[in-house]
Amino acid sequence: MKELPFRLPDLEPGWVWLVGAGPGDPGLLSLLALHALQQADVVVYDALVDPRILSLARAEAQHEYAGKRGGKPSPSQPDISARLVRHAKAGLRVLRLKGGDPFVFGRGGEEALALVAAGIPFRIVPGITSGIGGLAYAGIPTTHRDTNHAVTFITGHGVTGDVPDGLDWEHLAKGSPVLVIYMAIKHLSGISSRLLAAGRSADEPLAVISRASTEEQRVIETTLGRAAADVAAAGLEPPALVVLGPVVRLRAGLDWLGALAGRALNPDPLGTKIQRDAV
Amino acid sequence: MKELPFRLPDLEPGWVWLVGAGPGDPGLLSLLALHALQQADVVVYDALVDPRILSLARAEAQHEYAGKRGGKPSPSQPDISARLVRHAKAGLRVLRLKGGDPFVFGRGGEEALALVAAGIPFRIVPGITSGIGGLAYAGIPTTHRDTNHAVTFITGHGVTGDVPDGLDWEHLAKGSPVLVIYMAIKHLSGISSRLLAAGRSADEPLAVISRASTEEQRVIETTLGRAAADVAAAGLEPPALVVLGPVVRLRAGLDWLGALAGRALNPDPLGTKIQRDAV
Repeated sequence: MKELPFRLPDLEPGWVWLVGAGPGDPGLLSLLALHALQQADVVVYDALVDPRILSLARAEAQHEYAGKRGGKPSPSQPDISARLVRHAKAGLRVLRLKGGDPFVFGRGGEEALALVAAGIPFRIVPGITSGIGGLAYAGIPTTHRDTNHAVTFITGHGVTGDVPDGLDWEHLAKGSPVLVIYMAIKHLSGISSRLLAAGRSADEPLAVISRASTEEQRVIETTLGRAAADVAAAGLEPPALVVLGPVVRLRAGLDWLGALAGRALNPDPLGTKIQRDAV
Repeated sequence: MKELPFRLPDLEPGWVWLVGAGPGDPGLLSLLALHALQQADVVVYDALVDPRILSLARAEAQHEYAGKRGGKPSPSQPDISARLVRHAKAGLRVLRLKGGDPFVFGRGGEEALALVAAGIPFRIVPGITSGIGGLAYAGIPTTHRDTNHAVTFITGHGVTGDVPDGLDWEHLAKGSPVLVIYMAIKHLSGISSRLLAAGRSADEPLAVISRASTEEQRVIETTLGRAAADVAAAGLEPPALVVLGPVVRLRAGLDWLGALAGRALNPDPLGTKIQRDAV
C-alpha cells in the first residue's frame, strides 16, 4: 500500500476513537480504522475482532480485551467506559475497536456519552455492519429491486439476554418484507413463533449465517417453519445472523464465495424469466 | 501506509469486482476497495463517488462515469451491465465502484446477475451504507439501547422516480421505532403524510442529512410535521437521508463533528438522568 494522496485525521493523545472493525474479513477494515491502529497507544477490543486486524496495531500498542473470556462474565459497560476515560485522561491515544459498526447494536452511543460526560474528545469511525456485509458474503443482498424496498434490522438479544422487550413483532413482521436479526440463534424458536403468529408463512425462505465473512462462515438455507430445528441439528455456533424474506432466494444466483469453490450460479434465481416465458 | 501483514485477494483479468465506496468520506473506504483501485484496468463509477477516492486508482486506469451528466439521463442499468461484461470479456480487470454499499438500494444484485448470465466471475466488496455511516457523521446512532432495538431502511425513490409501490407504510410506521429513508427529499411531503396518517406524531424528531460525511454535509433537525417545509426553506440538495425517531435526540450528545467545530455536547441528551432525579 503506497502513501495516500489525501490526509486522514490523526488520533491525538487524550482522544478516543470509537471504531467499527466490520463483520470479520480484515479486508473490510476502513482506511481510518487502519490509520487509527497505526497510531493508537492502547487498543480496547471486542470478542469479534479478527487477530489479523489487531496485528495492524503498532508493536508498542497495548491490547486490552473487553469481551467475555472463558466462563467469566464480560466487563460491564460502565467498566469499559471508565477504562476508556482513564486511558484518555492519562494522555494516551485510545482506540476502541468494536465488531461491525459501533452504532448498530454496538453500544457505541453509550460509550460516547460516557466520554462526553468526562469531557474526553472523541471521533466515531463507522464500520460495515454484519447485517449488510455478512449477508453479502453469503450472497444475499439486503435489498433487491424485484423483491423489497425496505429492510429491517432487529437485535434478537436484549440487555438481560432475553428477546428484547418493546419490539412490535407483529407490525414489523407485517411491514417489512425482509428482516435481518442479529444475535438470533439463542431465541430463534421464540422469534420464529412470533413471526408465524404475525402471519409470515412457514414456507418463507430463511438463511442463518454463522461467523459471517470469516473463514469459518457457515450458511444454512431453510424456511421460517424449519429454521429452529435445522439450526439445532446443524450445531451452528453464535454469533449468527438470521435473514427472512425473498432476498434469500437470490443466493442461488449471487453466492460468489460458493462460486469461487465451484458452485454453479443461477442467473435467474427468482424465476422471473421463466414466469415471463410461461405467460 | 506500510505493507499489510496479510494477503488480500487480487482483482484478476476478466473479473469484475462490485465494490461499495462508502457514504462519501474517503477515509471510510475499505482495504479491499483500495486494493482493487490499485489493480483495476477500468473503473466504472457512480455520481456519488468522491474524486479523492478515484485518485487512488492506478495512473493507467481508465475511468468511466456511469451516473447522470448535465441534463442527460443516466445510462440505463442494462447498458451499465453490458459495459461491465464487455470489459471483462476483453480481459480487463474491472472495478465497478458504487456509492455506499452495492447491496443496499444499489442495484448490485442486478449487475451481478447480469455477470452470472454472461459467465463472468465476480466478487462483492461491501461498503458502509450512508444510512448508517452518514447518520454517524451527523452524530445520530442507528440504534441505541435506550431508544430502539430495531431500525428500518427504506428507499424513498422507486424505479420510476415515484415513491416505490408496494411499501406497507402503515405497518412500517407502526412497527419500527426508527425509520431511515434514502433519497427522501423529492417525496418528503408525501412520505410525511403517510407516516402521520399511520399514527406517527407530528412532533416526533426528524433529521435530514444532505451529502452525508462529505465536506458539504448539512444537517437539519426538525420534526415530522415541519420537515417538508423546513427542507424546502433550507434549500437542501439531494442526495439526502431522512431519519425519524428518538435516536435523533441523541445528536445533542453525539454530534462529534459539531464538537470539533466548538459545539458543546450534552452527556444526557435523552434527559434520562433528569427524569430519574425528578422521581
